[in-house]
Amino acid sequence: MTITKDSIRRAADRIRPFIHKTPLLTCSSLDELIGATIFFKCENFQKTGSFKIRGAVNAVFSLTEEEARKGVATHSSGNHAAALSYAANLRGIEATIVMPQNAPSVKKMAVERCGARIVLCEPTQKARQETLEEIARESGASVIHPYNNELVMAGQGTAALEIMEEVPDLDVVVAPVSGGGLLSGTAVAVSETNPATRIFGAEPENADDARRSLKTGKIVACKNPRTIADGLRMSLGEKTFPVIQRYVEDILTVSEEGIIRGMRLIWERMKTVVEPSGAVPLGVLLEKSEFFSGKRIGVILSGGNVDLDRLPWIR
Amino acid sequence: MTITKDSIRRAADRIRPFIHKTPLLTCSSLDELIGATIFFKCENFQKTGSFKIRGAVNAVFSLTEEEARKGVATHSSGNHAAALSYAANLRGIEATIVMPQNAPSVKKMAVERCGARIVLCEPTQKARQETLEEIARESGASVIHPYNNELVMAGQGTAALEIMEEVPDLDVVVAPVSGGGLLSGTAVAVSETNPATRIFGAEPENADDARRSLKTGKIVACKNPRTIADGLRMSLGEKTFPVIQRYVEDILTVSEEGIIRGMRLIWERMKTVVEPSGAVPLGVLLEKSEFFSGKRIGVILSGGNVDLDRLPWIR
Repeated sequence: MTITKDSIRRAADRIRPFIHKTPLLTCSSLDELIGATIFFKCENFQKTGSFKIRGAVNAVFSLTEEEARKGVATHSSGNHAAALSYAANLRGIEATIVMPQNAPSVKKMAVERCGARIVLCEPTQKARQETLEEIARESGASVIHPYNNELVMAGQGTAALEIMEEVPDLDVVVAPVSGGGLLSGTAVAVSETNPATRIFGAEPENADDARRSLKTGKIVACKNPRTIADGLRMSLGEKTFPVIQRYVEDILTVSEEGIIRGMRLIWERMKTVVEPSGAVPLGVLLEKSEFFSGKRIGVILSGGNVDLDRLPWIR
Repeated sequence: MTITKDSIRRAADRIRPFIHKTPLLTCSSLDELIGATIFFKCENFQKTGSFKIRGAVNAVFSLTEEEARKGVATHSSGNHAAALSYAANLRGIEATIVMPQNAPSVKKMAVERCGARIVLCEPTQKARQETLEEIARESGASVIHPYNNELVMAGQGTAALEIMEEVPDLDVVVAPVSGGGLLSGTAVAVSETNPATRIFGAEPENADDARRSLKTGKIVACKNPRTIADGLRMSLGEKTFPVIQRYVEDILTVSEEGIIRGMRLIWERMKTVVEPSGAVPLGVLLEKSEFFSGKRIGVILSGGNVDLDRLPWIR
């Protein structure tokens, strides 16, 4: 089983009552800067502040009654954690979130606000995985992986489906890539709507495992990523990678300075709060503007959850 | 001559080709906090980043050909300066902006980007007024006052007209007040659409001249206002005051802490960049939530031009 435009359409129908249809904004001053026409899909305005709610709701509302009764669980300290907590709360079931002890308190609060249970563990990949498995074994909870899950991937693809319904004649769509949930869903939604639209992933230079994976044909692990884009530090999954190989033309990278510049421009010109990961596509456009010049471009602003006490341009 | 719903309607027709119809956003987490249903009119997304473009375009495009040829002028270091520069550029005429020497460079750049001419003067009210009069005398330029001008007032009222077209059954509308251009236009647009909708102005406790003016029946000057809301430091004008007296129920005030809290909540929950002045109405709602509880409220987020290097909650 893999994802198709049909599974994305079904996801869209399933999640429609629970999510925002986010606006697709334009900004003449950014258009001028890049020399292109850019449509920004504002998933930072989405419920829970990121696109992650799309996949989480699709997965949670696809569970049978019996599965649902046992709850859901995941490990994440980011937007997927808040999204799964919110989705479980919508269905009235329990969510358990495994988080490293050192996760920022903002992230913990976002999860607690949705009534989810947090289980803290050592901040290692191994401890997170083992703690999660133990919880699943004991409670029978369904583990909802942040990206390596077809229902999650199809859910994330609904954002691009909305873009293509509004502007079907885009030359290019650019989405950030980490584990590949958003990019794989986007790729299928876009190319099965308009095969002429080219699809690119965007990631930090300092976490360019997806670019190297596509180049070598094997999943390269993301090791010690030193990037401000805290949502883009995962490696591709074995379910997302083949979809990306099939539909995505290339993964383009951006420097840390480019990410911060893109982020600040979006705040300043669009009056819109975007997190560093969500500014990565504009960063790519800024640093590769000769390639994007003259094109009609769809860009996914993936999220807006940022610590307002620590802005990267204020030291 | 004063403003009427008809003059606001004519303004709306005149400016329509040049401005954004801004979105009216809701935010369930802020609704929960106040215990009300709030519709935020996002003039921070407006061209030039504030509602001021509405009045400026209405005034500039109401000039005769002969008047227009001689250009326009004003003194302002804030959003009206950028708005008038932009409006003049749209009509292809010259704008001259008188600014105090100590105006922040961000503000100067915003004006220069629109191709307007800046004339610097001593940072006193007297020097600004004299410099402006000299320019008007020499060039024959039309002086477009930031608020004490019926065409400007009618233009500012178009934002509330858009609100009432979308949600005609509001209990209350709250707009920030400084010189009263926005509040007077809002008051006429709202009460001539739905006389049952109550209208309040919102201003900082530390610049509560409008509240005292309404109370005493005479324009009280705004002296040495010590408020972070840099757009709300002017006194009412003799054209705006009678309109406000007739239509506005009361002026409600908010502490500096309340303004900052409101601003931060809008950034955090709505992912939207609003300037301190634009957060004053939410600040009022926060500090007087028992009054607003249970009501359907329209709030004007007046602008989003803020120095991203200096945020009030980061020291």
